[in-house]
Amino acid sequence: MVPGVTDSGLYTDHYELTMAQGYWLDGQAERHACFDYFFRKAPFQGTYALFTGLSDLLDCLTAWHFDDQACAHLGTLGFDPDFIAFLADFRFQGELFAPPEGEVVFAGMPVIRVEGNLVETQLIETLLLNLCNYASLIATKAARLRQAAGPRLLLDFGLRRAPGLGGLQASKAAVLGGMDATSNVLAAMRYGLVSSGTQAHAWIQAHDDELSAFRHYARRYPSQCILLLDTYDTLRSGLPNAIRVAHELAADGHRLQGVRLDSGDLAYLSKVTRRRLDEEGLDYVKILASNQLDEYLIHSLLEQGAPIDAFGVGTRLVTGQPDAVLDGVYKLCQIDERPCLKLSENPEKIILPGRKQVFRWYDGQGRFYADGIQLADEAPATRLTHPRDPERHVDLTGYRCEPLLRPVMAQGIRLEPVASAQTIAAYARDRLACLAPEHRRFDNPHPYKVGISTALLQLRQTCVNAQRARLVP
Amino acid sequence: MVPGVTDSGLYTDHYELTMAQGYWLDGQAERHACFDYFFRKAPFQGTYALFTGLSDLLDCLTAWHFDDQACAHLGTLGFDPDFIAFLADFRFQGELFAPPEGEVVFAGMPVIRVEGNLVETQLIETLLLNLCNYASLIATKAARLRQAAGPRLLLDFGLRRAPGLGGLQASKAAVLGGMDATSNVLAAMRYGLVSSGTQAHAWIQAHDDELSAFRHYARRYPSQCILLLDTYDTLRSGLPNAIRVAHELAADGHRLQGVRLDSGDLAYLSKVTRRRLDEEGLDYVKILASNQLDEYLIHSLLEQGAPIDAFGVGTRLVTGQPDAVLDGVYKLCQIDERPCLKLSENPEKIILPGRKQVFRWYDGQGRFYADGIQLADEAPATRLTHPRDPERHVDLTGYRCEPLLRPVMAQGIRLEPVASAQTIAAYARDRLACLAPEHRRFDNPHPYKVGISTALLQLRQTCVNAQRARLVP
Repeated sequence: MVPGVTDSGLYTDHYELTMAQGYWLDGQAERHACFDYFFRKAPFQGTYALFTGLSDLLDCLTAWHFDDQACAHLGTLGFDPDFIAFLADFRFQGELFAPPEGEVVFAGMPVIRVEGNLVETQLIETLLLNLCNYASLIATKAARLRQAAGPRLLLDFGLRRAPGLGGLQASKAAVLGGMDATSNVLAAMRYGLVSSGTQAHAWIQAHDDELSAFRHYARRYPSQCILLLDTYDTLRSGLPNAIRVAHELAADGHRLQGVRLDSGDLAYLSKVTRRRLDEEGLDYVKILASNQLDEYLIHSLLEQGAPIDAFGVGTRLVTGQPDAVLDGVYKLCQIDERPCLKLSENPEKIILPGRKQVFRWYDGQGRFYADGIQLADEAPATRLTHPRDPERHVDLTGYRCEPLLRPVMAQGIRLEPVASAQTIAAYARDRLACLAPEHRRFDNPHPYKVGISTALLQLRQTCVNAQRARLVP
Repeated sequence: MVPGVTDSGLYTDHYELTMAQGYWLDGQAERHACFDYFFRKAPFQGTYALFTGLSDLLDCLTAWHFDDQACAHLGTLGFDPDFIAFLADFRFQGELFAPPEGEVVFAGMPVIRVEGNLVETQLIETLLLNLCNYASLIATKAARLRQAAGPRLLLDFGLRRAPGLGGLQASKAAVLGGMDATSNVLAAMRYGLVSSGTQAHAWIQAHDDELSAFRHYARRYPSQCILLLDTYDTLRSGLPNAIRVAHELAADGHRLQGVRLDSGDLAYLSKVTRRRLDEEGLDYVKILASNQLDEYLIHSLLEQGAPIDAFGVGTRLVTGQPDAVLDGVYKLCQIDERPCLKLSENPEKIILPGRKQVFRWYDGQGRFYADGIQLADEAPATRLTHPRDPERHVDLTGYRCEPLLRPVMAQGIRLEPVASAQTIAAYARDRLACLAPEHRRFDNPHPYKVGISTALLQLRQTCVNAQRARLVP
């Protein structure tokens, strides 16, 4: 939570305030509303997203308020003085239901259910989407990088290419999703992450020659020295100089930690580098690679047998390329006791009405078998229906299940202690391991089964029919 | 500037601190360094970028410091106590040279020249890149949207899909680049922007029926009512209900301001909507369109004759899709009196050494004719050479020119008053109008001429030769 920004009631879309004022002035403020946060398509042509941003969201909701400056600003915009006075005392006092941060979630299912009065639940829409969409996108990208890199070290180098202040959230989400460390020192301090880095070309250029630059760095950081090889020429300058410095370090009882390849053909260069290092008895020197990497390039490098021990990933991680967005939305699904929905020409965009729960079924090996979206007061189903094909079912007999949406905030109070980044990252890793490889592969992954209960199917049809009956013929 | 984040000395990459400590402990802190900020490729397959982020950068540099918590954190990371004591008193006291915010800039040219001691100029690298890369990307996208939309109203609706806190910077950059207003109320308050918005599907769903929802909204906001048509069915429900409410408003002496189309075929729907509104004597009701728009879709809609008066653009603006990144870098080009560079297999990545100035030449109509990168102490050239083809020249005889890099900070003090967003946006608009249409068109734009002076060409060759002579044969 960043004071003055994400704790500000003005960190929202103008229309949230216009609508909230409308409800409030019309005496509708105390109506009970239920909104769902969900996304329609998993990012990166995959099947899943890693849900993150929850802890930030809960912190921000706890602190969210309209200070004097905010109220004065709303006055200049013509908002009603009585409504502004109401906002001056406003605190979010609603309820949130969500899986733990780091959970594996799927398209179409409610990821957060928000309940409260109509004003407060409407006002927080933009804040919730802003915090959860981006964090979940980056964590999902990091999870894919981890899948490609296996046990190798993965470093987030993205702050310089990050979307401004979003870099703070990117680094955290990156570590929650699977990176080992980040270059972002502030994020590391705030969120208890490990920060790390090597050296820039400027260090080499600032010295009279590359060898002097390497020697100075090695003298200063003898036990954590990683030398950047490509300032002048990786094989004809950087590597020979690094080998010389490695021997000098060894003579003093130190070990050169690594070398970094930052341009050129990383598969070829890493193989030559490894061979020359090994010929020199420097088999302990690690090879770190960077330069416009993503999960596909890492996969390809390793498939080619590139002997790379660590990857630094920047731009394509923190921008979530190529998608650059998780399309999460926040939709009203019940008002007072009335389930409601929005229609659409596109059947995939018809929303699921009513207060809902999501159950996850597990197979005998503890792997995820299917997720079911149900009405909140239903017992777990024994059979689920495909959301867009009522003829397709999945039978759940013999599988155990548990609910995914647990209360995480009640009366505006956070219900759980803050988990450490390490705890969330470990949870994410464990949960991803429960998702079968066919749902995680990069090329044409097999869709994971997400169904809806018969009661929800019927409710949706009833609501759709009722709305359609009102259309002009 | 966001206290606790962008004024923190820890809002940087770990290696900046490691290198700075190395310089400082080695007695190199007081050496004079000159860095260039530039980008290698214009975004969106265009020829230019709109330079923004400068004002934020200057504010952050003025405030940038290492507080007690930051120093304590660096202690836990093993930084040297004397160096930490130095950082506790650190203030950036260097010089920056840059064009005004809102300037049209091109690939390869120094956009900011930073001079100062080696420690301070190295430390600010990440901060500068983080602030300028993203803001310039979004402003450039907004300029392209403006080009497509012509005089029509353009609204930034992106906060919900913005990259977390980066949404604050996105909204500002969007308006600097050409949007008329933003939905982001906090950004509007902080930066003096106009905020605006319409209504969400939830407003419609929360009422018993669409007509009641429209009526309530119109009663509450009779002079600024824009009705969202697609909750149930644009033509069979939204539009007939909106027409009815428009007549009711008219009976009370008000005019319905507009209707919003948010799904479906916007070209078709806008034509039908316009015709039916006009048939009802509601020719004053504006049509606003939104839903995954970008400059290409807006161009296509208008080419099809879609009678749309205003566009709301969200995701593809604030994520800078499809690029999602401006690849700006920060490279050391001179240390003390020694110009320096980095070599590369890729000739486009060989950097330009030395302290440099950029001149811009104008033709008789005041249009940009060519930009020239020169050494800082040279008089304006009479002839420029293509940076990668020494046989190609541009003759400047008879053209007037002016320098682009002007001092904007000296001894760590900002040299100019803060300009309003409107002033910067107007400057950007005026400067874009000086760029010939062939350089601005979306499809295969003609490259703008950026050349280098003979002296710079020779210096680069001398530096390249000197470095290559040192390579292992």
